[in-house]
Amino acid sequence: MMNERSEQQAGMGLEFRVVGVFTRSRGNVTDPGGLDTRKLLDDISSHGRFTGSLSDITPLEACLKLDYDVMVELSPLAVANKGEPAASYITAALERGKHAVTANKGSVAFAYPELSRMARDNGCRFLFESTVMDGAPIFNLADRCMKGNVITGFYGILNSTTNYVLTRMERGASMAEAVREAIEMGSAEADPSDDIDGWDAAAKVSVLSRALLGADVTPFDVRRSGIRDVSPEMINDAASFGKRLKLICRGKRTEDGGIDASVGVEEVSSGDILACLSSHDSGICLESELMAPIMVVQKNPTPNDTAFGVLEDMISIYA
Amino acid sequence: MMNERSEQQAGMGLEFRVVGVFTRSRGNVTDPGGLDTRKLLDDISSHGRFTGSLSDITPLEACLKLDYDVMVELSPLAVANKGEPAASYITAALERGKHAVTANKGSVAFAYPELSRMARDNGCRFLFESTVMDGAPIFNLADRCMKGNVITGFYGILNSTTNYVLTRMERGASMAEAVREAIEMGSAEADPSDDIDGWDAAAKVSVLSRALLGADVTPFDVRRSGIRDVSPEMINDAASFGKRLKLICRGKRTEDGGIDASVGVEEVSSGDILACLSSHDSGICLESELMAPIMVVQKNPTPNDTAFGVLEDMISIYA
Repeated sequence: MMNERSEQQAGMGLEFRVVGVFTRSRGNVTDPGGLDTRKLLDDISSHGRFTGSLSDITPLEACLKLDYDVMVELSPLAVANKGEPAASYITAALERGKHAVTANKGSVAFAYPELSRMARDNGCRFLFESTVMDGAPIFNLADRCMKGNVITGFYGILNSTTNYVLTRMERGASMAEAVREAIEMGSAEADPSDDIDGWDAAAKVSVLSRALLGADVTPFDVRRSGIRDVSPEMINDAASFGKRLKLICRGKRTEDGGIDASVGVEEVSSGDILACLSSHDSGICLESELMAPIMVVQKNPTPNDTAFGVLEDMISIYA
Repeated sequence: MMNERSEQQAGMGLEFRVVGVFTRSRGNVTDPGGLDTRKLLDDISSHGRFTGSLSDITPLEACLKLDYDVMVELSPLAVANKGEPAASYITAALERGKHAVTANKGSVAFAYPELSRMARDNGCRFLFESTVMDGAPIFNLADRCMKGNVITGFYGILNSTTNYVLTRMERGASMAEAVREAIEMGSAEADPSDDIDGWDAAAKVSVLSRALLGADVTPFDVRRSGIRDVSPEMINDAASFGKRLKLICRGKRTEDGGIDASVGVEEVSSGDILACLSSHDSGICLESELMAPIMVVQKNPTPNDTAFGVLEDMISIYA
C-alpha cells in the first residue's frame, strides 16, 4: 500500500511511500509515516520474516481501513480458489475509490467485469500488466498504443515453466528432471501441476480474452491440455522434421460473436518466431482489424520484470 | 489537415474533418466545411489527380494560414534534403500551436530537438509513430508503456526493401531482379539507392537514437554500409553454416555517455528471431535499464499499417 508524495524520483516527479506490507508468512507491518523498505528486505534476508513492531490486522482489514492511495496485490495464483482472496482485497480497495495494481491473474480471470466496472464507477484505476509476460507491455500496449483499433485474436507462448521443461527435454533431460530444475530455479511452484497441466496458461488466456477481446472466459472455459503426456519420443519425432513442441495459448473472436480459447501442445516449424523461444522466453502475437500482426517477445525475464510491470502501472496512475 | 468534431466514431468519440489536402503531383484542395475524402480517392483512381475547384496556395502557406487543429505530414524521405520541406511545414504548424503528426523520418532525423521543444513550448503534440516499422508501436510504446524506465539500446531489421531483396537472393534471384520486383510491388522507390545503400535504415537509426536514447545523431552520423556489395556467393556461404545475411540497425549508449549507431550487413544464426524475419517483415529489440530485452515484430505489413500509425497518433492527441 502506497501514499503518493510530490518529490522527484527517476525523473518522473513521483515518490511512493509504503504504508503497509501484508504477507502470507513473513508477518505484517504498517506505518502511516512510511516504512523503511530497505529494512524490510534485510529482515527477510536475515530472519526470514519482519521484525520489530508487527500489525495484527488482517490484509482485508488493511484494504478496508488503512489510509493509502494505491493497493498492490501480489499473491500467487490458485485456480481452485477462483481468484480469492485477491479479488476481495481489490474489491475492498476499489470500493473506497483507491487504485489497485495486481500481478495476480486470478482476480482478473475470475472477476474482471466486476472489478473494471467498479474502478470506472469510482474514478480509480485497476491495472494488471504483470499478469501476463511479466512486465512486457501487452495490456497497456493494447490500451495506450492501439487506440481506434480492435484486437481480434492472439496466440503465443506464455507459460515459462513448461517452455523451460520442453527445452530441457529436447536436450535430453527427463520431464521429472526438468521439472525439478525449474522448481530449484524458483520459476515453478513446489507443486508445479498448475503449470504442467496448463492451468497457469489457461488463466493467462482467460485474462487476455477478457481484457483484449471483451469475452467472458474463466480459466475453466478454456479448452486445455498441458504437457504431462509429452514423451521424449514425441519431442524427437518433431525434431526429426525440424520442429519443436510448444505449449501454445490461443484466443480468437469467432464469426458468431463468440470466442475460441485454448491451451495445448503444438508442433512449431523452425523459421516460426515461436520456435525461437527457448527456456523462460515468452511471446505473444496480437491480431487486429487495422494492423498486420504485431508480436511482442520477452527474452529471458527475471522477477525484476514482474516488479517493473507493477511499478510502471503504479507510475502510470500519476504520470 | 484536420478539424476536430465531437461526434462518435469507432467508439473513440472522435470524428476528423479533413479541411485541406496538399500533394506533390495530384493537386491541392481545401474546404473549411470538410472535404469529401471518398471523392478525393475516386478522383485519384479515375483521373490520377483531384478534380473540381483546386486551391492555389502552397503547402507552406496552407500550414501557416488555414484553420486546422492537426497537420499530418506524409512526404517521402530524401536524405539529401536534410528533412526539408517537411521540417518547415511541421515548424509552421507547431509555431501556431497546432499539433503535427508525420510518417516522414527526415524531419525527425534532422530537426527533432527543435521540433520537440517547439511542441512542448506551444502546448501541442509532435508525434511520428509511423516513421519506423510503419504503425507498430515503438515510440509510443517507449513513451506510454515504459514509464520510469530508461532505454539503453536497440537493434533490429528496419528496412523492408533490403530484407525483401536479401530474401529473394537466398531463393536464387539476382540483386537486380529482386530490386526490380520490389519497385514493381511499390515497396521500393523508382530510385532505390536510399534503401540499397542503407540511407533509409540510417535515417531510422537516427530517429530511434534521438527519440529513445536522447542522442543528437543525424543520418550522416550513423556508421553505414548497405547491401550493394552482397553477392550470391556470400549468401550461399552463410546458408551453408545455417545463417542468413541481414541488414541490421543498431544504436547503443556507450559508457562515456556517447552513442554508437550503425547500419550494416551481419550474419544471423538460425534460432535468432531476426533470422525469422523474411521479405517485408521488420523487428526491433529494445534494451533498457529495468527490463529484460523486449522485441517487437511486425509480420508482412501493408501501407494500411503506416496509415493506422498516423491515425493512432491523431486519435491519441484527443483520447
